[in-house]
Amino acid sequence: MSLTRSCLAAAAAALMCGSTAQAAAPDQPTLAANAAALRDQALKGSAAYPFLSDLTTLIGPRLAGSENEHRAAQWAVARLKAAGFQNVHIETFPVPGWTRGEERAELVGPSPQKLILTALGNSGATPPQGLEADVVLFHTYADMLASAPGSLTGKIVVVTQPMVGAQDGSGYGSLGVMRFMGPSEAAKRGAAAYLIRSLSSNTSRTPHTGVTNFPKGEAPIPAAALSVPDAEQLDRLAALGQPLRIHLVLTPYYKSGATADTVVGDIPGRERPDEVVLIGGHLDSWDLGTGAIDDGAGAAITFAAAKLIHDMPIAPRRTVRLALFGAEEIAYAGPAFAAVRPAADQDKYVVAAECDFGAEPIYAIDLPGPALRAPFAALLSDAVAPLPTYISREPATHGGEDVEPLGPHVPLAELRQDGTHYFDIHHSADDTLDKVDPHRMDKAVAAWVAFTYLAADSDVDFRAKP
Amino acid sequence: MSLTRSCLAAAAAALMCGSTAQAAAPDQPTLAANAAALRDQALKGSAAYPFLSDLTTLIGPRLAGSENEHRAAQWAVARLKAAGFQNVHIETFPVPGWTRGEERAELVGPSPQKLILTALGNSGATPPQGLEADVVLFHTYADMLASAPGSLTGKIVVVTQPMVGAQDGSGYGSLGVMRFMGPSEAAKRGAAAYLIRSLSSNTSRTPHTGVTNFPKGEAPIPAAALSVPDAEQLDRLAALGQPLRIHLVLTPYYKSGATADTVVGDIPGRERPDEVVLIGGHLDSWDLGTGAIDDGAGAAITFAAAKLIHDMPIAPRRTVRLALFGAEEIAYAGPAFAAVRPAADQDKYVVAAECDFGAEPIYAIDLPGPALRAPFAALLSDAVAPLPTYISREPATHGGEDVEPLGPHVPLAELRQDGTHYFDIHHSADDTLDKVDPHRMDKAVAAWVAFTYLAADSDVDFRAKP
Repeated sequence: MSLTRSCLAAAAAALMCGSTAQAAAPDQPTLAANAAALRDQALKGSAAYPFLSDLTTLIGPRLAGSENEHRAAQWAVARLKAAGFQNVHIETFPVPGWTRGEERAELVGPSPQKLILTALGNSGATPPQGLEADVVLFHTYADMLASAPGSLTGKIVVVTQPMVGAQDGSGYGSLGVMRFMGPSEAAKRGAAAYLIRSLSSNTSRTPHTGVTNFPKGEAPIPAAALSVPDAEQLDRLAALGQPLRIHLVLTPYYKSGATADTVVGDIPGRERPDEVVLIGGHLDSWDLGTGAIDDGAGAAITFAAAKLIHDMPIAPRRTVRLALFGAEEIAYAGPAFAAVRPAADQDKYVVAAECDFGAEPIYAIDLPGPALRAPFAALLSDAVAPLPTYISREPATHGGEDVEPLGPHVPLAELRQDGTHYFDIHHSADDTLDKVDPHRMDKAVAAWVAFTYLAADSDVDFRAKP
Repeated sequence: MSLTRSCLAAAAAALMCGSTAQAAAPDQPTLAANAAALRDQALKGSAAYPFLSDLTTLIGPRLAGSENEHRAAQWAVARLKAAGFQNVHIETFPVPGWTRGEERAELVGPSPQKLILTALGNSGATPPQGLEADVVLFHTYADMLASAPGSLTGKIVVVTQPMVGAQDGSGYGSLGVMRFMGPSEAAKRGAAAYLIRSLSSNTSRTPHTGVTNFPKGEAPIPAAALSVPDAEQLDRLAALGQPLRIHLVLTPYYKSGATADTVVGDIPGRERPDEVVLIGGHLDSWDLGTGAIDDGAGAAITFAAAKLIHDMPIAPRRTVRLALFGAEEIAYAGPAFAAVRPAADQDKYVVAAECDFGAEPIYAIDLPGPALRAPFAALLSDAVAPLPTYISREPATHGGEDVEPLGPHVPLAELRQDGTHYFDIHHSADDTLDKVDPHRMDKAVAAWVAFTYLAADSDVDFRAKP
């Protein structure tokens, strides 16, 4: 018997041992005791860090559609099977196959200086020898949008608006348009290339990539993110009235026929196996780092939470499904995942939640609206309060990029992680294992396991009115 | 009259105004009042930050022997002349001209991952297409030195010993041999290439370069520093028993006929102009960052201290000489600087001190031994105590790489800067202006100006017994 089993047995024994076919949910004290025991077990050391260490070390970077991403899926299948998950399988789907090439830039004038930057996902390419052009620099994205017609033709457009760091990541959400739409908007205005200050909350010379978008039929232009100090250097030179000229080489390309792999595994419910609590993270990462916080951690945290539930003496009544999505960064796995699940199946999903905001503790949980005044919310609040974590007073509006394409009847929850330092390393080469504190990550596991267990073993219906 | 002049005039007036030919040193209260006024003036905002901002922005990286390094010297001459320094001139001397080429590496097995590294100064080159070899990994430098004969032949040797961060930089001094001698020691043992964990106190993916040395007649091998997370990744893979294989491309070369420029300027003494208080920093930097803390800051701090003294209503009795050395990193400017100064001149140097440890405050001052119990030490202690800075109880044993080659009669002093975070960015692309806090740098200026002024206007003789 594992340590987990022995710890949980005492609390569970009274109602659950030897009663695998009971039709009623455990009573509130039993649910509370089990949730607390799972939480405390997570805090003693969960399976999250070993999972994350092996994933980031043995596989490394995992760009969707790359060989490493497929290797990660194979690795995850073996890991889930070894942990006792059932119905472990891979769901393969097509992705665009954007692949980074060479990337370098130099300030040619007024003084020769190397610039450190990285191509945005879906960036177009320069000629192999690069392109050289004068710079038009804007301090805000709004200024770029308001530029005089014709003023950007043939120029390298640079936008240096700084991102605001915020605990809930809202600063990133607010300025994301500068990266996601900026290159296309600059292209429409005739720009030869488009550079932004990295969406970053630190001052490392390491640039932060991320996806951008060119609507169908628009020719992509080269688009990249400068490191924060490089953007500030251009700001200072511009303030000194120096005309700027940049030589830029970016040679990304699309691999044809690329696919990505989502890995799925179940802990079948003991009474209502067709009712599903869906949790997970994404296995793919950007290619610059090893995807430790984005999103190896989310995969590891939800794997560890599911594993703790698997190790209970008696399974919860409903199925816990773990999905490790094969593409979130440069393409989304969600539409393919939803497409292979008929609406009738989706109607049986109790709740869906993706963990995709790093390896820090959960400070708040957003529940589906109908649950806010239900016994579930009180039970969960008691279970997570010591972490500390609170239940938001507002209903969840998000559940994660890869689960949101599920049908409109699938309730979503959001377990909010502290993102104060998330954007220091997010989407950069610095996203590596050493940035993760195992004990703090286990605090996130503790909140996830309490949430997941209570959703799977209680009678909560997130669509019902309280 | 400048603000400085008006501030100092009150304190200085009684003894000094209108008495430019006095033979005696100012009395102790006047020296104390002047030193305190200069210190406070520095704290209000010195010339250091504008100097540093312009140097790092308008010139950028300044590798000794590069075009940028020469441009920096021309810029500094103009800056010193504009500030009123006398006898401003350039002293040109030959340097080896090592120049960084391409640098990239990939872990070929067990899993393909890019490795981030940077060539060490004086590194040899790989073939243009690179070299690929199995890795022999050592956790300590001593283990590498003790390796079995023949065991390293044809291998890429990796040493991952971590550097200890320490306020006084002693962790760097202690492990420097791993970088400075390691490549040569590995070459003697038949290694094909030599990689170390960066001598760094942080966990950025940014690697830290630095000079290494191959004795004459030894063929250099490719030598580079991995970023800390990359070294830890190799440690983890090795711990998992994975055989490692690396593909490495480094293409540095030597430019022939390279020279560097040291810039010298004086604030002539009013009574004893041939007695010289020598201060300065080095204008050259590594090529990866813009040399903000190493050593633009040292140049800026000593420039600002000298400028405050220049702006006094009456010059000190002795000459303050500012030397901005053209090579410290990959070659030393000191021997050339000493060579053009006859021993008889050097005998008149009151003291020499180079500022080369970042932009943080001075926490301690090491004086030449004979001064420890002299009135000078007490005067200086009073002037710097509020910063806070203390006078060491031990005599100075160092004065800075570029001033130590001066003759044995030139007393050395060391103004110790807080290096707790110095090795986070030292010798890396992250050495940029944004890492410098102007007010904290002005605390360093305050200590330097008090020290320099008291050495120049008192009767202290650092060679005399107290």
